[in-house]
Order: sequence, then structure tokens, then C-alpha cells
Amino acid sequence: SNRPHLGGRWSGKVVPMRIRLDLAYDGAGFSGWAKQPGRRTVQGDLEAALEQVLRVSEARVVVAGRTDTGVHALGQVCHVDVEEWPDQTQRRLNAVLADDVRIRAAGPAPDGFDARFSALSRQYVYLISDSGLLDPRARGGVWVWRRGLDSESMHDAAQPLIGEHDFAAFCKARPEASSVRTVLELGVARRNDPRDPRLIEVAIRADAFCHSMVRSIVGALLAVGEGRLDADELGGILQAGQRVPRFTIAPAHGLALVEVAYPPDQELASQAQRARRFRGRST
Amino acid sequence: SNRPHLGGRWSGKVVPMRIRLDLAYDGAGFSGWAKQPGRRTVQGDLEAALEQVLRVSEARVVVAGRTDTGVHALGQVCHVDVEEWPDQTQRRLNAVLADDVRIRAAGPAPDGFDARFSALSRQYVYLISDSGLLDPRARGGVWVWRRGLDSESMHDAAQPLIGEHDFAAFCKARPEASSVRTVLELGVARRNDPRDPRLIEVAIRADAFCHSMVRSIVGALLAVGEGRLDADELGGILQAGQRVPRFTIAPAHGLALVEVAYPPDQELASQAQRARRFRGRST
Repeated sequence: SNRPHLGGRWSGKVVPMRIRLDLAYDGAGFSGWAKQPGRRTVQGDLEAALEQVLRVSEARVVVAGRTDTGVHALGQVCHVDVEEWPDQTQRRLNAVLADDVRIRAAGPAPDGFDARFSALSRQYVYLISDSGLLDPRARGGVWVWRRGLDSESMHDAAQPLIGEHDFAAFCKARPEASSVRTVLELGVARRNDPRDPRLIEVAIRADAFCHSMVRSIVGALLAVGEGRLDADELGGILQAGQRVPRFTIAPAHGLALVEVAYPPDQELASQAQRARRFRGRST
Repeated sequence: SNRPHLGGRWSGKVVPMRIRLDLAYDGAGFSGWAKQPGRRTVQGDLEAALEQVLRVSEARVVVAGRTDTGVHALGQVCHVDVEEWPDQTQRRLNAVLADDVRIRAAGPAPDGFDARFSALSRQYVYLISDSGLLDPRARGGVWVWRRGLDSESMHDAAQPLIGEHDFAAFCKARPEASSVRTVLELGVARRNDPRDPRLIEVAIRADAFCHSMVRSIVGALLAVGEGRLDADELGGILQAGQRVPRFTIAPAHGLALVEVAYPPDQELASQAQRARRFRGRST
């Protein structure tokens, strides 16, 4: 059923309803998504805004993609369970929030929806401008590289990363967690943007990502684009499963979470159940 | 002839060569284009960079569009006369300049080129996001309006402004100067930007603009989009030629100079001659 949770009281007991929130934010002003004491985070700002607008003592949001410090989002998704969701709540939240985070859509979620566990995939886009030319208004979201890059060889070298692999070579070591992920799409292309003809876009979609995975892959592809690493060596690094100093991790400000994809409503609950079984692969 | 000035010494005398510079800048950090003592301006930064890199005591640039405080540029054009233009000068200028201004192209200009007087037209784009939804990373370049706007009625009301008119009603009064301008293109449309479906673009091209003209027109069109002013009233205001308090001047940060158009090389000199005769209409 795709009937939304409507909440309300049932024999005196409040039945919470789940709200889906779609967000965009400029990561520059945040110490990432996850709440941390003494730091400004997206989760911290959002929960405080929910508590203020809904007049509740504690609002807890669950997110699809826990972005790191400085990473942006255009299509972040989270959920929160509340007792009521009055008209105008989205507008009032945006009025309370600073203008570097915006709620693009908000409303009751379909049955079985879990922002984290129901997600089928996350897509990130990383922007690089080579030769150091760019639209200066976009500079907060672009890694400027002062030498030319061969975007076609970057694309070709990236293709063997598609599929299910152990991405340990591209993950910050967390020995307890699996680093097996399924990359569904990975492409490198000149963006053909009239405002900056030197913009290269690295677009990657996967079921989930381990920590620093996109930025490590971008760092490796940049080494390919400069001719310092070839496709065979990149494949060898993936196979060896060890982090190597042959490439650096690309800086956070070029990265944005652009989309989280969910299955049709009737499959939200079963997808969440499957993902919970593989908890290490779900963020 | 489209032969570039090559400069060099001729019977002991230095023949200067004219360099065309194409620039982009984020207007937020500048008190506009024109050099002013004690303020950071694009002209000031650029001339200082030229003097440093070329080791000359004074570099004077001439610009196509003198943008106001806070106004951005993607396709600004200027020229400077120099004695030599060594390889790598563009790269070295960009290394000296702060990253909110970038030289996108630079090199010897064709004979007869004058960045200001040879220009046929300037195009500006103004961005508005209605309903207050937007990509927060773009917020430095978008006027956020918290109520919905009817972009089609804005477009329709704008059409009678196309053509040669006295735009006194949309210009800051400068009694000595003519406010007759020729608007060549003017359109209002939803931008169909996947990152912000609520983005409205006002694009206007004219032979030249008087002071605050684009922002005044955008303010009037916004009043139309809200239903506070109709197309006939807008036409009446244009005809009356008096500034009226029926609309406000749109803020600078939504505005960008996107393109300056020049005639074919063989017509650069004659176009400059024509424009100099109508000096008041050439910026």
C-alpha cells in the first residue's frame, strides 16, 4: 500500500507519522551531516529547526547519505517521525534554517519508507576544472586543477570499477566493516557547460559508499588524467585492496550528493529489510 | 585586416599592442568594476595584477560593461595596451589574482578593436527563484522571492520594451546623458534547471544600458509576476519616462553580465567610430 502514515490518536495513543524530507545544502559552512557537539552540522541545524517549529523536545532525523565535512548535497533525503505535520511546516522550517540549507520537499512518507535502508542507490557528482579556468561563482563546488587532464582516459580507466568489488583500496580502513560495494554507474565527461568549458564531471552511482570512497576514486582518476597512473595499474590497486600513496584523496568541496533512488512504494519495506541485513553497506 | 597588433620597436619607438581580456568574476567581493580609492574593485585588482606581472608602472584597462557593486560577470571583456605580452601571461595573471576573478582568455586583439566602443551589444541575465526554493550553492547569484511569480505574464509584459525607447523611467537620473537605448532581446522563462525547478531567468540584450536599467526592469517585471502591475501600466510607465515608486530596483546579486558581442573584425573600427559619436549610449 502506498497510503501515507496519517498519524493521529488511536484509542488514546499517538500514532507517529513518518515524514520524508528532501534537502539541499552548501557544505562549506558545515562540519558534515552527522551531529557533533560544539560543531555546526546539517543534522544539528535541521533537528533544532524541527524542534523549534514543531515545538517538540527531541526530533531525530535518519539520513540516506552521511556527507563529510565540506561535501554538498542537492538531493539529500532523510526522514523524521513526528506526531503531526501542520500545513506550512516546510515553509516555516526554511524560514528558521540558515540559507545554506534548504528543504526542497517535505511530507508524509509512504508505508515502509526508511530514508537510509529503503534507498537503492546514491549518486554523487564530483566537478573538476582543469587548466585552472572556471566560473568563479562556482568555485566553492569545483576542484581547480592547474594542468590539463585527459578526461577520456579517465573515463576508460574508470569502467572496470563498475560492478561489485571490495573497494578497500579506496576506503578509510574500518576493519570491522565490509568494504564491498556495487558501483552501478561511473562516468567521466567534459560537461559541455558554456560557463566553463573546462569542467569535468565524474558521476558515480552505487548501492552505498564507504568512507571517502568517491573522493579516493576521483583522486585516482585524476592521476590517470595526468598520465601518472594507467588503467591497468588502477585495476591492480583495486585487486590488491590496499590503500596506496600513488594518488591523493580529492578535496571535499568538489563533491555533491545529487540523488538518492528508492524502489516503487510497494517495495520500500522489503528493500529496507534486505539492507538492514547488510548494515555495513547501507550508508 | 584581422592581423593582430604585434607590437615591437619601430625605428626606436615602442609600438604598443592591444590585448583583449575576457573575464569572469563573482561580484560579491567587489565594489563593482570601476576603480575607487580605498575599495576593492575588479578594475583595481586587474590593473594591479597587470602591473605586477608585466612589470609596468601603469596599466589602464578599458571595459565593455561597467558593472555595479555586487553584480557578477561571466563574459566581461576589456582591453589594455601594452608593449609586450609574453607567453604564460594569462596563467601568471590568474595566479596573482584572487580566485573570485578569472581571466578566461587573453591575447592580441584584431585591428580596430576597442572593448567599449566596438561592442555591438551587451547581454545580462537576472535569476530569480520564486517560492524561496533553491539550490543553496547558487544563492549568491539568485534573488529569492518567497511568493510564486507568473513568469508567462512577466514575459508578455516585457515584449513592448524591445526596440529603441527612452528608458528614463528605468534609469538613475543623469540629466546630461541620453537614456535612449535599443533593447534587442528580452525574455522571461523558467530555466528548466533540474537543480532548481523554481528558477526564473530574465535575459536582456541591448546596444547599451543606462545605470540600474536591468535591475529596474527586473523590479518592474517582478511586480507584473505578482499581479501588482499589468502590461499596460508598464507600457505607460515607459512612455511617461519618469521613475515611479510602483516597483523596486532588484538587488545586484541576481545579475550577471553574460556576453558582449562584437562585429566581424573588419567592422570593429567603424563600429567604434559610430559608438564614439553616441558616447552616452556606449556603456
